[in-house]
Amino acid sequence: MEKTGKKAALADAVNLLAQAEEALIISHVAPDGDTLGSALALAWVLETRGTAVTCFCEEEAPANLRFLPGIERIVHVLPSEPPRLVVFADCAEARRAGPQLRPETLRQTTTVNIDHHVSNSLYADWNYVDTKAAATGELVYGILRRLGPVKDERVALCLYTAIVTDTGRFSFSGTTARSLRVAAALRPYVDVAALNEMIYERRPLAQGRLLERALARLTFPAGGKIALVALSLADYAAAGAELNMSEGVINYIRAFQGVEAAVLLKEAESGLVRVSMRSNGAADVNRVAGRFGGGGHKRAAGCVCRRDLRAATEEVLKALKEEMDSGRDD
Amino acid sequence: MEKTGKKAALADAVNLLAQAEEALIISHVAPDGDTLGSALALAWVLETRGTAVTCFCEEEAPANLRFLPGIERIVHVLPSEPPRLVVFADCAEARRAGPQLRPETLRQTTTVNIDHHVSNSLYADWNYVDTKAAATGELVYGILRRLGPVKDERVALCLYTAIVTDTGRFSFSGTTARSLRVAAALRPYVDVAALNEMIYERRPLAQGRLLERALARLTFPAGGKIALVALSLADYAAAGAELNMSEGVINYIRAFQGVEAAVLLKEAESGLVRVSMRSNGAADVNRVAGRFGGGGHKRAAGCVCRRDLRAATEEVLKALKEEMDSGRDD
Repeated sequence: MEKTGKKAALADAVNLLAQAEEALIISHVAPDGDTLGSALALAWVLETRGTAVTCFCEEEAPANLRFLPGIERIVHVLPSEPPRLVVFADCAEARRAGPQLRPETLRQTTTVNIDHHVSNSLYADWNYVDTKAAATGELVYGILRRLGPVKDERVALCLYTAIVTDTGRFSFSGTTARSLRVAAALRPYVDVAALNEMIYERRPLAQGRLLERALARLTFPAGGKIALVALSLADYAAAGAELNMSEGVINYIRAFQGVEAAVLLKEAESGLVRVSMRSNGAADVNRVAGRFGGGGHKRAAGCVCRRDLRAATEEVLKALKEEMDSGRDD
Repeated sequence: MEKTGKKAALADAVNLLAQAEEALIISHVAPDGDTLGSALALAWVLETRGTAVTCFCEEEAPANLRFLPGIERIVHVLPSEPPRLVVFADCAEARRAGPQLRPETLRQTTTVNIDHHVSNSLYADWNYVDTKAAATGELVYGILRRLGPVKDERVALCLYTAIVTDTGRFSFSGTTARSLRVAAALRPYVDVAALNEMIYERRPLAQGRLLERALARLTFPAGGKIALVALSLADYAAAGAELNMSEGVINYIRAFQGVEAAVLLKEAESGLVRVSMRSNGAADVNRVAGRFGGGGHKRAAGCVCRRDLRAATEEVLKALKEEMDSGRDD
């Protein structure tokens, strides 16, 4: 795909989707609630209107999102013959679809890009991109409402999930009055307590055991401004935990009083350490990660260090302290 | 106070408040975000309109709510001469004001009761009680909007806090479309990221140390359906934690996969154990607490056992198991 697109209006997106006989809806790799919820909500409504819909996501949905209605219909292998209309849901770039989607595949198709990322490259024929939206789910709600009242419980659950997850339960700074208004419109059709329980409260025991070990290893360097945990292969083994269970750890340790930045170092294999960093705003952890060949956002970034756990810890901590000190000189 | 009240309409509440020359606004003991945010929002607006306002709450605000604008103006000693208008904010009963408020004190005053608790006893002259509201803050918003646009950042912060805290960040089942619509209306005047950080992400270190010990003591009786932690005086001492820091513990342990009910037993002093219970819906922990002279709600209840920690643990666990088994026979 080497299309040069322009921004499309809501009405264009609605027209394209309303007239489609067949559509392929694509969610991004490392799928989250917004990309999956947006895609499935679109699928339910378009299908009801007679469109033949295929949903594609190269990777499996995380365990806590498998309750999404229609999740079992998502295929992980791209159809050999792509339909005439391809819709990207929540993908900042076409390559977020994953390696199966080759640039030449979509030359004969019409592509629509529905997204809210600031970094969106307007890669499709029609780009309905609104960076003021806190979630792509808000934009999909706007589209679907033009096609009729949004009252289907499956659709509402998908869209509410998209918004709740991408706004951090309405707590991130990007949460707008519109985010809350769309949630209000969907609320009558959604069991919010059940939804929150499914997404946030079915924690595997191993995750608790991992947090227990993490708290035992927790230190507060830089006079308490940094919360630091380094977990070894032995820690993961003892907790029975997998590497991807550590999101709970970093979120927990960054929320201590006085902490401005949190670092979690995970020994993924001998001599290879994955680093996650979070900042409460003052420090730019994207810059720190960049010094180790990684990246992300100002408030959340990561990198990989090919060193042993102790050396990686020292180097990352040093870099983070330097970043925090330089910030103070501005 | 032995008044027999009746339900008052929104318009009645608005008229009374709009005409008051002086008012005492009362928040309940064990103050939370809803009672404090509602009272302070009322205070800011009434004062701007020329009413002389005193805010009273017998107990100190929790540390994480001290950011509320106006918190420093709340007095903890009841004025000897109560004003002609007394407003109860979020108090299900007059005695929720605490022991300083004697029944005879308010005989000469007009009382208004603004609340959303199902158990509200309509104890005032004017009772604006709406049990469908997720927070009293929603009702106060409705009142204040009748007096003019709600755009003051201090008022918006107070009301948003009331709603966020009483809905568990919009996750409890009582969260309604109106809760979300009021939040949407306030959003332009509130920094939601800063607010969430202040309420939820300034955890004292001792609270983390307490969770670490709690996780070390965590067991899953009843085939994993119960999450159980018993913390001794020694545990609190070792963590440097106070008894009231355990809300984080019960919320964490109740969110494990497969857990239907969580129990936390806290040795408050030798031979005295405070018990907190949470249910994900199936078990009625109010009934269990009732067997020990305590109470609460179906999903959240507590009691006190005058026994040693081990005996209390065994008895409460036995009672909870019986409740869960009897539920299955229904």
